[in-house]
Amino acid sequence: MHTIVALATAQGNSAIAIVRMSGEDAILIADKIFKGKKLGAQASHTIHFGKIMDGDDVVDEVVISLFKGPNSYNGEDTIEISCHGSPYIIKRVIETCTKAGAQLALPGEFTKRAFMNGKLDLSHAEAVADIIASENESQHKMALRQMRGGYSEKIKSLREELIDFAALMELELDFSEEDVEFADRKKFLDLVSQSLQVIEKLIQSFQLGNVIKKGIPIAIIGKPNVGKSTLLNCLLNEEKAIVSEIAGTTRDFIEDSLQINGITYRFIDTAGIRETDDILEARGIERSYEKIKLADIVLYLADIHKPYQEIVEEFKSFHFEAHQKVIIVLTKSDDEAGLCNAYDIEEAVSTLCKRITLEISAKHHRNIDKLLSLIEKQAQTHDRGFDYIVSNARHLQAFQQAYESLLQVQKGLLEKVSGEFISIDIRTALQALGTITGQISSEDVLSSVFSRFCIGK
Amino acid sequence: MHTIVALATAQGNSAIAIVRMSGEDAILIADKIFKGKKLGAQASHTIHFGKIMDGDDVVDEVVISLFKGPNSYNGEDTIEISCHGSPYIIKRVIETCTKAGAQLALPGEFTKRAFMNGKLDLSHAEAVADIIASENESQHKMALRQMRGGYSEKIKSLREELIDFAALMELELDFSEEDVEFADRKKFLDLVSQSLQVIEKLIQSFQLGNVIKKGIPIAIIGKPNVGKSTLLNCLLNEEKAIVSEIAGTTRDFIEDSLQINGITYRFIDTAGIRETDDILEARGIERSYEKIKLADIVLYLADIHKPYQEIVEEFKSFHFEAHQKVIIVLTKSDDEAGLCNAYDIEEAVSTLCKRITLEISAKHHRNIDKLLSLIEKQAQTHDRGFDYIVSNARHLQAFQQAYESLLQVQKGLLEKVSGEFISIDIRTALQALGTITGQISSEDVLSSVFSRFCIGK
Repeated sequence: MHTIVALATAQGNSAIAIVRMSGEDAILIADKIFKGKKLGAQASHTIHFGKIMDGDDVVDEVVISLFKGPNSYNGEDTIEISCHGSPYIIKRVIETCTKAGAQLALPGEFTKRAFMNGKLDLSHAEAVADIIASENESQHKMALRQMRGGYSEKIKSLREELIDFAALMELELDFSEEDVEFADRKKFLDLVSQSLQVIEKLIQSFQLGNVIKKGIPIAIIGKPNVGKSTLLNCLLNEEKAIVSEIAGTTRDFIEDSLQINGITYRFIDTAGIRETDDILEARGIERSYEKIKLADIVLYLADIHKPYQEIVEEFKSFHFEAHQKVIIVLTKSDDEAGLCNAYDIEEAVSTLCKRITLEISAKHHRNIDKLLSLIEKQAQTHDRGFDYIVSNARHLQAFQQAYESLLQVQKGLLEKVSGEFISIDIRTALQALGTITGQISSEDVLSSVFSRFCIGK
Repeated sequence: MHTIVALATAQGNSAIAIVRMSGEDAILIADKIFKGKKLGAQASHTIHFGKIMDGDDVVDEVVISLFKGPNSYNGEDTIEISCHGSPYIIKRVIETCTKAGAQLALPGEFTKRAFMNGKLDLSHAEAVADIIASENESQHKMALRQMRGGYSEKIKSLREELIDFAALMELELDFSEEDVEFADRKKFLDLVSQSLQVIEKLIQSFQLGNVIKKGIPIAIIGKPNVGKSTLLNCLLNEEKAIVSEIAGTTRDFIEDSLQINGITYRFIDTAGIRETDDILEARGIERSYEKIKLADIVLYLADIHKPYQEIVEEFKSFHFEAHQKVIIVLTKSDDEAGLCNAYDIEEAVSTLCKRITLEISAKHHRNIDKLLSLIEKQAQTHDRGFDYIVSNARHLQAFQQAYESLLQVQKGLLEKVSGEFISIDIRTALQALGTITGQISSEDVLSSVFSRFCIGK
């Protein structure tokens, strides 16, 4: 493969920066521009001090790490140039490499080559991108687990067993005139049912995986001036909360997010509803409402100085989704006594469902701690009973397709459909499962997977 | 020295990040947290794959580069952990190191240790910080030259010769009753005069050094609505110009800067003058005017549709500094014919001094290219006749002090002042020169030098 080069560390002024170069001519090119020991003559996994030269010009004094293929990240000869961390020098070092014959790497191209050279399977490669993007403990654990195997092995072994049966089924087709059965239908049916169970659980885990990856969606709703923004600012400013503004390429809107003890929470923008005068009327604002529907946790705000009956009526008229955990928050519990209290409200709505009610004062920071730990408690009920967690939408789609096809196989086996038809469904399922680990892959899939990477990985 | 740890690459999501650890326990600490080969048993300058463990938790899969002292950047045992470039992982890796006994490094602490261990002198160390901060070719060349020696050697040898004489002078003092002269006054006077010449040239080079480091200051002046902002925007938007907003800790205001062929230009904010109605009146606005005084190049704008006489009168009434290069720019040279032309104006002011006049239209991009190359040409007349360039304000101060003291020495020698007094001045000069390379240093100087560094260097 041609030799590629890219900055592997983040942009910016820093002590050092790493420019990475890999490919069949990596060492040759490095020897052209490096004034120091001849790298071609050195052992792999060694470090060499010298200068990067652009003709007679010293570009920088550097340290080079030498990795000889196949004992490198992507299996190719790889050179890592550790130079001074100045954007100007980085640019010059990369230019010097390209002048000497290297090409600029595309996003993820180093890892794509690792995949091509069998250094890691596709789901591992995707986990590498997730590792880099991980922002907290849960995301990091999930990505690391997947990078170190995860469900890849499970899928591979399932797939192999299915392939064995598929082969037997196809063999039958070749001998179709003789009406023999090589494949043990009973055993095959067991395998298919077992596979369906495994895949179903993986599909179910996606919601959790997605939440870990993107954060638990929380909506703060309530009438205008009930204190939604005040509460949000108050939560975001709590000392123990880490606030960040998410503005990624993968997400199409900017929202506030907050980390508490390694879990990310995403606050859903209810701006649309904020502008209208009436919660009921707000239902008309479809977009905001659709977003609120996606919330796992809803903070329903009501003014403690409003009459008890009014709050209860309003609450009853609001439609929550079955999966939503609702916390009723009575706001403005400041100095003056309120017209209602948490206990009464909780009583009143308990006939509807179990809700948690809390009196707070964002102004006086009253019970904000309690609210945070309530949110945390609600979030924890998420994380249960999954050996493996799917967080990748591409994998989900493949699992869903495999599941559908295997259902057809199961049905076919039960209804004793001809092997010909069953074969087609098995192949579809095998195809789908194969795309997850990349045993089956198209250039389209690969491009889309690796374009998610940063350049230099 | 205790072991220190810090991120050495820039913050942000990236393929890889380097966490650097150095100190007497660096290898011991690394072996505690690294699951892989025992690093203590490995050769220096080798690379090892493994996992960073926080107890039973895998923090990340990493590659460790091992540098055994004294063959490392700062002479200490040094470990560079190349981990995945996620801010979360970086945080975890550093935490794992500190838990195992390392301390967070202060800014520049790695390089400070390099200085302490005699790996580089103080002016080299400062050049390292400059290298990292360099934004263009001139800055980079200047910093690289200094890092690789620069005037350090010159200063060191001057200082040694002066020390020899100083020692002889002091010896005389011990034998003062015998009235002997060990030091050859004639030779000494030659040495002092020669030193004064060298130092004078270095002091003179500072203006250039400062300009290279901070950019060449340019002021755009002229009456309101003459087209100052339009021209500035036009220059900043020229394709070949790289625009950046400087907002550093070392500069106390934000201004526009522009790079043309590796030289930085800084546009001085003449906002104060923009607001007033009359250029003469503008002189009252002291702050803006003081800033304009600092400009090396002045673009004096006048509307081409104003009468010739008016422009000439206005121009004559404006006071320029002797060092300033003035380019008269006749603006709004659009479709309509102007009331004056560049040739006439140039003629009219030529009695005052040689000025360059140019007709431009920012609107039609007329002559903007020419203006840029005129600016560039003015700038180049700067870069002449210096073997070494001083760009560091601390060094300038030390040179100035040494210069003053050596002048006193010279005077003393000529006036045959007693050796006692001459000795005091020599010592002051030696002290000043010693602080440049760090042969003489106080904790204050060191702290101030190294606090300029980024953490991790």
